[in-house]
Amino acid sequence: MDSKFIVIEGLEGAGKTTARDVVVATLREQGIADIVFTREPGGTPLAEKLRELIKQGIEGEQVTDKAELLMLYAARVQLVENIIKPALARGAWVVGDRHDLSSQAYQGGGRGMDTVLMAQLKQSVLGEFAPDMTLYLDVTPEIGLQRARARGELDRIEQESLNFFTRTRERYLALAANDASIKTIDATQPIEQVSAAIRQVLRTWLKEQQ
Amino acid sequence: MDSKFIVIEGLEGAGKTTARDVVVATLREQGIADIVFTREPGGTPLAEKLRELIKQGIEGEQVTDKAELLMLYAARVQLVENIIKPALARGAWVVGDRHDLSSQAYQGGGRGMDTVLMAQLKQSVLGEFAPDMTLYLDVTPEIGLQRARARGELDRIEQESLNFFTRTRERYLALAANDASIKTIDATQPIEQVSAAIRQVLRTWLKEQQ
Repeated sequence: MDSKFIVIEGLEGAGKTTARDVVVATLREQGIADIVFTREPGGTPLAEKLRELIKQGIEGEQVTDKAELLMLYAARVQLVENIIKPALARGAWVVGDRHDLSSQAYQGGGRGMDTVLMAQLKQSVLGEFAPDMTLYLDVTPEIGLQRARARGELDRIEQESLNFFTRTRERYLALAANDASIKTIDATQPIEQVSAAIRQVLRTWLKEQQ
Repeated sequence: MDSKFIVIEGLEGAGKTTARDVVVATLREQGIADIVFTREPGGTPLAEKLRELIKQGIEGEQVTDKAELLMLYAARVQLVENIIKPALARGAWVVGDRHDLSSQAYQGGGRGMDTVLMAQLKQSVLGEFAPDMTLYLDVTPEIGLQRARARGELDRIEQESLNFFTRTRERYLALAANDASIKTIDATQPIEQVSAAIRQVLRTWLKEQQ
């Protein structure tokens, strides 16, 4: 089987880290040993610097929505060109904690950024490059934020309003409904059931790829 | 007279700092006292962080052309929204060391980036916002780089090839030829003559604005 790029998406507190462990265990079961992990924004030295600016902002300076989006894409293109594409080319599988769908949901849905700008940027920066499969872990903002808060201090984006996360989730669901490569998992269930659902979806998908 | 945004452009070593002093002296002559200086990339705390990443890069990581361009626009939108527009709104004049024309010339001309991407980004990020007047200081790359080298160590972009700067200059000249708001000054002349030319162009332009 050709190497693939699998992305895990969802709101804060959706359970992305647990899902990653399940994905990796399921891939290893199939004899896939060479797996590269990425996270966005970040994953290269330059992209991690940008992550810090995006997540923490700058004391006393308003980060404009456009600057945030441009920094996200600057980080993304570094990761895609310097890490993801070379990994796939050498035959490694790539498992990503977030990718472009996060920008579509958070900046496009949550912040309500112009859809023409969003589409142009995506096309200009990524072209036809896209994940082979995305696992979208669907939780309500209430549940997700409760879990995220239990983990500790929230960053600049995690401090957004409940309405922001509601709009973000709605965009996630709308995009998932129109894209067969996005598999929606009900992540409000107990962890064992979420893990079982991920395993099942992934196994079925892997079979289809053979 | 309404406040204006005047930009000084040109290759490294074109004499932008000297030109700025002449512009300021000429504006003060006309009784214009409230003048804000900007430089690009930079000019806000976040934009200065981006400037450092753009200028110095990251040891061992290739900065892709797209990431460079996206970081330049992220810095630019912060500067325009947080500094330039508020300054103009309160009646201050703004004198900028570089603005969007630099991206058109360096990234569009020098790096040969896609003109559709360039035009879309400019439109998406800046809309109709543009300088009221630009002084383009035209030097050959040979003269400019000789002056820049005499000043000390060159940064990541200043270390580009002569061909890169030749393409950049060609784009500057082509854009200036098609835009009446860009005034080309022969900056290969001795400094007194360059300063006299700037004074004359600026005085004429200021009269036209009254």
